[in-house]
Amino acid sequence: MKVFIVLAHPEPRSLNASLAKYAVEVLEAAGHEVKVSDLYGMNFKSTVDGKDFKECNSEEPLKIFDESKRAYAGGTQTPDVTAEQEKMKWADVLILIFPMWWYGMPAILKGWVDRVYAAGFAYWVGKHTPTRATDRFGEGTMAGKRAMCMVTAGGKADHFNARGIAGPIDDLLWPINHGILFYPGYDVLPPFVTYNTFPGAIDDKRFEQIKADLKKRLLTLDTTEPIPFRKQNFGDYTMPDLQLKPGLEQEGETGFSIHQIAPKATGCSA
Amino acid sequence: MKVFIVLAHPEPRSLNASLAKYAVEVLEAAGHEVKVSDLYGMNFKSTVDGKDFKECNSEEPLKIFDESKRAYAGGTQTPDVTAEQEKMKWADVLILIFPMWWYGMPAILKGWVDRVYAAGFAYWVGKHTPTRATDRFGEGTMAGKRAMCMVTAGGKADHFNARGIAGPIDDLLWPINHGILFYPGYDVLPPFVTYNTFPGAIDDKRFEQIKADLKKRLLTLDTTEPIPFRKQNFGDYTMPDLQLKPGLEQEGETGFSIHQIAPKATGCSA
Repeated sequence: MKVFIVLAHPEPRSLNASLAKYAVEVLEAAGHEVKVSDLYGMNFKSTVDGKDFKECNSEEPLKIFDESKRAYAGGTQTPDVTAEQEKMKWADVLILIFPMWWYGMPAILKGWVDRVYAAGFAYWVGKHTPTRATDRFGEGTMAGKRAMCMVTAGGKADHFNARGIAGPIDDLLWPINHGILFYPGYDVLPPFVTYNTFPGAIDDKRFEQIKADLKKRLLTLDTTEPIPFRKQNFGDYTMPDLQLKPGLEQEGETGFSIHQIAPKATGCSA
Repeated sequence: MKVFIVLAHPEPRSLNASLAKYAVEVLEAAGHEVKVSDLYGMNFKSTVDGKDFKECNSEEPLKIFDESKRAYAGGTQTPDVTAEQEKMKWADVLILIFPMWWYGMPAILKGWVDRVYAAGFAYWVGKHTPTRATDRFGEGTMAGKRAMCMVTAGGKADHFNARGIAGPIDDLLWPINHGILFYPGYDVLPPFVTYNTFPGAIDDKRFEQIKADLKKRLLTLDTTEPIPFRKQNFGDYTMPDLQLKPGLEQEGETGFSIHQIAPKATGCSA
């Protein structure tokens, strides 16, 4: 397989960078090809502005959607953006490695998304008609590829469980997993999350255990069952208003999880 | 009142910037004092790195928590960060104005949070003991102040409702409202969201309506009921594992909303 790792941490000796380095070792030893974008190391520009668009006329208001669509279609994007898109197209699997800061991505990684996810590339793909929306949420440029978040969190695992004060980790990551990864077509794997990473909380023994757990996930990237997000254009949603059709969720279920196919009942009971 | 507006849009003639300008007019006409941080206009640095910490020794690994705590306590933060913290302390109300890009904040605003929310200022405030966690989630430096998001979204309102494919807007904004605003102590007001902002979707008539709706919200900032997030240290959570105590949620309720106090039943029925 071809694997594209995007790393967002300023310190090369951080846990995030160490796990990224270890991931490359494991994947290459297993015969996979790996490319890495170390966003801090590349000094990746993280803010979208007029300088991203060569044909942008500064006397006219900057309309990002229009400029992005024109630049992508016309091949006039900045080279750094084009290079990232090429790596996304090259890879079978995308892995985002980042510390959860304030319950989301570090700004530099959000800026990577904001800039690299061009109109015509990551959104506004395919036709939009009254009976069928554009290719997104399960379809699009990245269809057939896989993606996974590798996240570190300072808080303890308890704080991120179903009743924990931070909110369930799957819901906190939903805007990323569903809105950023599933949107352009990726099959999204469950995240690899390391909790309780505050200074002093990880000794050598724990680090070895984290690496062992990570290795298992990395060697099963192609067989791990993706999060069963519902695809947009396959009958679960009304058109054109894109509402989940009645009765598909479990009884009483609300929130993000209605947009996932519930686990099938197994065993003997009815 | 004193109001601090943080604006995150690269185009001064955008809808976001126009609504920010209008908000200043309305608030000042009503006798309030307003300060604005136009992050793009200020060229605000959006990535956390070693340059943020004057005492940072580049031969040692950068530990952001340690450096942030030391710089905040020692008064050695960069002037841009200190200035934003001063505006936060000065204001009674914080308003974040931003376009929803990829179901979250633009990178420049996330970077404002990542940098300005220093240890000892926005987190790691007060003591942490086995029976009481630090001052956060309803307590902290910003306790007694209010905050509100003003958000624009390209998609239609339907897509963000309880069954819409994008997910419920309150859940999408939860990491911001609960994790970024409630965390350091703000009372968080319901967001002011403008949907369907794709090019061409807002004519003069609709813009006037948006302004009228916004004006109502701006003139009731001090009386609008905040989102009833549950405070951390007031009996709803177990210690030290910070789990919502059993039975506080509504029957069958799951996800983020269990961390809000359910609306009280009203009227005659039991």
